[in-house]
Amino acid sequence: MNWLDEGALYSGIGLFLREDLGRGDITTQSVLMRNTRAKARFVAGEKMVVAGLEAAEEVFVSLDPQQQLEAFTADGEEVEAGKVIARTSGFADVLLAGEQVALNLIRHLSGVATLTRQFVRAVEGTRAKIADTRQTTPGMRMLEKHAVLLGGGVNSRFGLDDGICVEPNHAALAGGLRAAVKSAGENIGHIHRIGAVVSTKDEIKEAIEAGATVLELHVQIEDAQSCVQYARELSPAASIEIGGEITMDNVRRYAESGADIIRVAALTQSVRAMAISFQIQVS
Amino acid sequence: MNWLDEGALYSGIGLFLREDLGRGDITTQSVLMRNTRAKARFVAGEKMVVAGLEAAEEVFVSLDPQQQLEAFTADGEEVEAGKVIARTSGFADVLLAGEQVALNLIRHLSGVATLTRQFVRAVEGTRAKIADTRQTTPGMRMLEKHAVLLGGGVNSRFGLDDGICVEPNHAALAGGLRAAVKSAGENIGHIHRIGAVVSTKDEIKEAIEAGATVLELHVQIEDAQSCVQYARELSPAASIEIGGEITMDNVRRYAESGADIIRVAALTQSVRAMAISFQIQVS
Amino acid sequence: MNWLDEGALYSGIGLFLREDLGRGDITTQSVLMRNTRAKARFVAGEKMVVAGLEAAEEVFVSLDPQQQLEAFTADGEEVEAGKVIARTSGFADVLLAGEQVALNLIRHLSGVATLTRQFVRAVEGTRAKIADTRQTTPGMRMLEKHAVLLGGGVNSRFGLDDGICVEPNHAALAGGLRAAVKSAGENIGHIHRIGAVVSTKDEIKEAIEAGATVLELHVQIEDAQSCVQYARELSPAASIEIGGEITMDNVRRYAESGADIIRVAALTQSVRAMAISFQIQVS
Amino acid sequence: MNWLDEGALYSGIGLFLREDLGRGDITTQSVLMRNTRAKARFVAGEKMVVAGLEAAEEVFVSLDPQQQLEAFTADGEEVEAGKVIARTSGFADVLLAGEQVALNLIRHLSGVATLTRQFVRAVEGTRAKIADTRQTTPGMRMLEKHAVLLGGGVNSRFGLDDGICVEPNHAALAGGLRAAVKSAGENIGHIHRIGAVVSTKDEIKEAIEAGATVLELHVQIEDAQSCVQYARELSPAASIEIGGEITMDNVRRYAESGADIIRVAALTQSVRAMAISFQIQVS
Amino acid sequence: MNWLDEGALYSGIGLFLREDLGRGDITTQSVLMRNTRAKARFVAGEKMVVAGLEAAEEVFVSLDPQQQLEAFTADGEEVEAGKVIARTSGFADVLLAGEQVALNLIRHLSGVATLTRQFVRAVEGTRAKIADTRQTTPGMRMLEKHAVLLGGGVNSRFGLDDGICVEPNHAALAGGLRAAVKSAGENIGHIHRIGAVVSTKDEIKEAIEAGATVLELHVQIEDAQSCVQYARELSPAASIEIGGEITMDNVRRYAESGADIIRVAALTQSVRAMAISFQIQVS
Amino acid sequence: MNWLDEGALYSGIGLFLREDLGRGDITTQSVLMRNTRAKARFVAGEKMVVAGLEAAEEVFVSLDPQQQLEAFTADGEEVEAGKVIARTSGFADVLLAGEQVALNLIRHLSGVATLTRQFVRAVEGTRAKIADTRQTTPGMRMLEKHAVLLGGGVNSRFGLDDGICVEPNHAALAGGLRAAVKSAGENIGHIHRIGAVVSTKDEIKEAIEAGATVLELHVQIEDAQSCVQYARELSPAASIEIGGEITMDNVRRYAESGADIIRVAALTQSVRAMAISFQIQVS
Repeated sequence: MNWLDEGALYSGIGLFLREDLGRGDITTQSVLMRNTRAKARFVAGEKMVVAGLEAAEEVFVSLDPQQQLEAFTADGEEVEAGKVIARTSGFADVLLAGEQVALNLIRHLSGVATLTRQFVRAVEGTRAKIADTRQTTPGMRMLEKHAVLLGGGVNSRFGLDDGICVEPNHAALAGGLRAAVKSAGENIGHIHRIGAVVSTKDEIKEAIEAGATVLELHVQIEDAQSCVQYARELSPAASIEIGGEITMDNVRRYAESGADIIRVAALTQSVRAMAISFQIQVS
Repeated sequence: MNWLDEGALYSGIGLFLREDLGRGDITTQSVLMRNTRAKARFVAGEKMVVAGLEAAEEVFVSLDPQQQLEAFTADGEEVEAGKVIARTSGFADVLLAGEQVALNLIRHLSGVATLTRQFVRAVEGTRAKIADTRQTTPGMRMLEKHAVLLGGGVNSRFGLDDGICVEPNHAALAGGLRAAVKSAGENIGHIHRIGAVVSTKDEIKEAIEAGATVLELHVQIEDAQSCVQYARELSPAASIEIGGEITMDNVRRYAESGADIIRVAALTQSVRAMAISFQIQVS
Repeated sequence: MNWLDEGALYSGIGLFLREDLGRGDITTQSVLMRNTRAKARFVAGEKMVVAGLEAAEEVFVSLDPQQQLEAFTADGEEVEAGKVIARTSGFADVLLAGEQVALNLIRHLSGVATLTRQFVRAVEGTRAKIADTRQTTPGMRMLEKHAVLLGGGVNSRFGLDDGICVEPNHAALAGGLRAAVKSAGENIGHIHRIGAVVSTKDEIKEAIEAGATVLELHVQIEDAQSCVQYARELSPAASIEIGGEITMDNVRRYAESGADIIRVAALTQSVRAMAISFQIQVS
Repeated sequence: MNWLDEGALYSGIGLFLREDLGRGDITTQSVLMRNTRAKARFVAGEKMVVAGLEAAEEVFVSLDPQQQLEAFTADGEEVEAGKVIARTSGFADVLLAGEQVALNLIRHLSGVATLTRQFVRAVEGTRAKIADTRQTTPGMRMLEKHAVLLGGGVNSRFGLDDGICVEPNHAALAGGLRAAVKSAGENIGHIHRIGAVVSTKDEIKEAIEAGATVLELHVQIEDAQSCVQYARELSPAASIEIGGEITMDNVRRYAESGADIIRVAALTQSVRAMAISFQIQVS
Repeated sequence: MNWLDEGALYSGIGLFLREDLGRGDITTQSVLMRNTRAKARFVAGEKMVVAGLEAAEEVFVSLDPQQQLEAFTADGEEVEAGKVIARTSGFADVLLAGEQVALNLIRHLSGVATLTRQFVRAVEGTRAKIADTRQTTPGMRMLEKHAVLLGGGVNSRFGLDDGICVEPNHAALAGGLRAAVKSAGENIGHIHRIGAVVSTKDEIKEAIEAGATVLELHVQIEDAQSCVQYARELSPAASIEIGGEITMDNVRRYAESGADIIRVAALTQSVRAMAISFQIQVS
Repeated sequence: MNWLDEGALYSGIGLFLREDLGRGDITTQSVLMRNTRAKARFVAGEKMVVAGLEAAEEVFVSLDPQQQLEAFTADGEEVEAGKVIARTSGFADVLLAGEQVALNLIRHLSGVATLTRQFVRAVEGTRAKIADTRQTTPGMRMLEKHAVLLGGGVNSRFGLDDGICVEPNHAALAGGLRAAVKSAGENIGHIHRIGAVVSTKDEIKEAIEAGATVLELHVQIEDAQSCVQYARELSPAASIEIGGEITMDNVRRYAESGADIIRVAALTQSVRAMAISFQIQVS
């Protein structure tokens, strides 16, 4: 039921195309007859959660408003190796001009969605949701965060402007955690929840007393459960989150601490691109 | 001795910043006194080839033209875990506003450079150079290709407009490989080398006879050496390249085939971000 | 202690200048000797809270990076009629080219700040803060909201993307207030406070039970106090706000209801421009 | 019979939308089912001259090219309170995303048109036309000047580049009024009328002798008639205009002086937004 | 004494550079050591009026803000073959990156200025000034019109928005010349002179009676004098201009008709680029 | 069979229109009834090779997506004086707004195509093709190079980024021709042919030995044949080109030297605009 503004989502695609096309596709221009037509299909080369199909369609539509992508699965669906994900037909020069950008997008975004799904499965049965971070690929944040949703995760802040998170740097520069959280609450508190990164029970207490209602715990795995409980007792309505070095190996144990949210930087960093091919045929 | 146009290289950084900053850093605005000053340093968390330092400096300069980054190593240098790579000082709000974008860039680009260096080392002693492909992260191509250079690799085409490469799709749509290569040579041949992707000795012969002087072989590892030799005999001046599914496991054997270039999509795809931290202190 | 990102704040000024300058100031070009120098000063024509001085400086700096504005008061200060607010000197063509845009900005923004100050004074001694709305002048939102801060008010949402507010339209379209608020909480609740517009005690109860922690009451003035109390009892930590048709005449009574925030659309709508003149002299 | 270039007129609307939408309407995204449909109507809350209907339609069309606005009155028509001005139907997220920007535009522009109409009525029966000035809201000049036309006024210069007006500042810096007007006539005279701001009969004489054919009188109300007559005698073909502090209280008397044009800064400054509501219903 | 807005004048130069540089100067990058320094000079290869020196400087400054051009003559000066017009020194890659764009500009603009000077000389002693038209090179209008000024000519309209000229097409579509001119006068007459293109004495009379004060005559050379006299008698204050097929061969005779302005499309069309070389040396 | 990317080709047209239209066509706005319809046709005034028809259509489509241009000849065809090249019909204000830009484009581009055709004819029967250079009109390179193709010529580099050409400046700055060519080959050789400008047999030898496969000879006409032969013997597969001061008078003799390519700067410099009229009629 959750979707994002398409304008914001696809606003980078024109830039991505210009990056690859420059002054035009000179191979195709010198090799093909004008108006040659062709058809093509995207085929999954491994099991994956598909993401980026709408972005790929936008690539081709940007080149030719008539172009359409017929999808055989929806973004967010899991498919097996060999699955024909989508097909399209049209002018060969359009297909060839958009091929690499579309592939680069769909492979990367399916990688994000697939990885997210794996994390989501790893914490099934716990209270925890898997959330992304701002550690995204520059220029791809909207698309990557959309892929996180498709994988079953939830989004945290989209930028520095849509949420308050008092980090240790702020605390150090503002005369301590308590002062920083308090200041945030006084200045922007009526429209935003006040978040704070904390690493000890003392900090948990300090932050809550100063008005924080989102607590991001950076704690050792063995301390997670007692810290979560402590925070929960002090502030039952707060959102208790865990961040830091979360991996597939430790995410389950962190989730079992009772936290509401596990923030996983890996979702959008160090992502393995999925194997997807684009097969063109004379039509 | 090789460098790229800075204008083109860093033109995306304004977009990256706007993506993260939006209407402004509301946490810092609500927490810090205006004109608070701070200093910060980038510290390597593992052994790596550094890349992206100049890009990171550009991030801070975009926010405040007075900001400078004092580097303790150069882009392209290899450093050990714990190394302080660079430091900077200035207004705290500038450091905090640029922190995430700078980190996202330097971590990812150092990942590209480090991976490239590993591939370059793997083929040491052979004739082969390691080259990148167009399988890059959308919006980051210039930066990623620069990181490949820093890692010791070489660049292939920057886009569809600065080189001719006849791929199987072109051959299929243009009435065969020979016709396609010939057409390319006639139409654009006097300013570009004509490249072709080939998978058999017959195709090698066909492409060379039609005028190709760059041959990208997509062949099984056991056929690589004989195909390279065959191509070399037919066209001693041609650039013999190997593409396809190149991994750290098979790159050495492919390189020992005698090819000039091994094209490695992995350099800019599925890149593991390097561990680098940004430590801010009151100054 | 609260400030905004200058990049976002002044990004429109280039457009404002182009709107007025077009292909250039043909009167000045045809009348003055090149490099004629002049000095100028802004003078208040009535009592006001000054805002827009930094914006005005940005106007002149955009035309000539050497230009400086020497301010004799700070944005946010109250001045009497006759006060010389600021002065500048430089090339006459720069002063004349920027004059109208600078004046249009400073007059309008001082109008916003002055009006805000009047509302703030009107509620002095109550718990209520005066907040703005999204009923701003298209293209001027950042500047107007900054002027609200300078006048002593606080900012509500900067756009549809940085806060959740469930309005009656959402409730109607989503199957009722309770369902809408609940849905918002489930989908985006962990990073944002959930706000809702409510007009009856039943709606207050429904919204709070569904998870709303920001309540914007649209109620008759005679019901304000009892509604605020009712909401406060149900949810002591919630932000209780009053919106609707707030005027200088009724704002005090609404504020005495005990609400935390009074949202005043008038702050940035129907604003009277302040009388400020720009006096140029031969230097 | 007078209309303006739509491209120039509506070029700012994309910016206005981005200002409000940012990364997207998170309330609607988290509350409504995708593809929910709705209908809506604009209703006048007071008597007014409508302006901005076409701009409002452009807002919705920018969000969805299929969206249409069915107008029940034309821009420039006078309507009574309660009148349904226009209606539209489509996707609920499009209506909600465009609502505030459309309302902000239509309220403000109707305010401009209504105020202009009042001034026009105030001078009915005299020779004078009501004209606007360059004292407009930054970023809204084209739209505001269009609203002035709709209200029955006429436009003066759109910018510093499309007309010559020698102001006292120019005279002071260029060695006197006569020299400045003469210089303008020599340098740009063959494509533009030469205008000059004058405050005394001596200046009127000087300006006309130097070649001015547009005279903007800044004079006391009691001197207006004799100054206009004096100018008319010296230069029967000149356009005699009156500027300065024109209000609803004094405009009639100024108009009775026999001037051709009364320039009223108030038309686009200190404008009261009209009461117009946007009512959404499930469709 | 006449100059133009530099912002508008040089706004295209970034585009011109990107057109030539694309992703960067790969020859220089692969051949020169980074930070190689060089010096260069522009040398006239024939007699000419120089124009474009400031534009050329802007080219280099766009690439490196430190770069300066030391001019040995001013734009608008006439120089002999062999004259060193200007010199510069700096980073070799900056000089090489800007070379072609700077040369293309300075050669073309000097061509415009030189041609204009020839036309101006051809009418010396007559009352006529030489004016340009809107028949300019797309994208270069501001620069070309500035070069016309430097050559001694005057500018006519910069675009369709800064002057009224009723052409035969308007007359045909608007129910005749008289109606069209009258309509223009009523709708926009108070800020603009009303111009009309006329080809017969009847049309001259009609246009003047309807309010035209700028008459552009398109008449045979043998009718020019009597038409100019006729127009002058009917409207002594009007600007009498001659347009159409003006060449170096007929311009003098047209000028001797007594017209105020001769409009010469050739000034900015079919321009011969001047011979200017750019000589780089190791510094 | 050769075509260029339309996106890149026509990306400047919006700028060209804004240059001419500014805030709108005030003559048409003040003279014509809204929605007046008209038809128009382009008529050749002399014999020419037509180019720019598609660009002209793009001009009108940019103003009104419904507008169409019915062509009676194709770009690249040769037509006689009097030929109706194309016609269109639609709103009169659209035709009048696009008229001058469309004409400026079609006249100039037809000039380029016609001149190219003349050079191509002049070398008929020889081995030589006529190629353009980077001496183009700033902002028009893509369009001019497309017109060269239409005239029968071939394109050389589109920018500094899509080909290697070692010029004397590079040689001087890099320690000699041999070193420069060698360096280019080592750094970028595997994707680009290495070109070099040479003026003597020694330089020919040096460049070829260092790896150049594109030789641009700048030699006296009497030395051309022996230099071409010498280069051909040393490097049979190289592209032998002739550049420098090529004119209609000497191009045939240069072509008879046996070179593959004659590079003619004149094709896109000092171009005479073709006589083409745009005739509007009431429809």
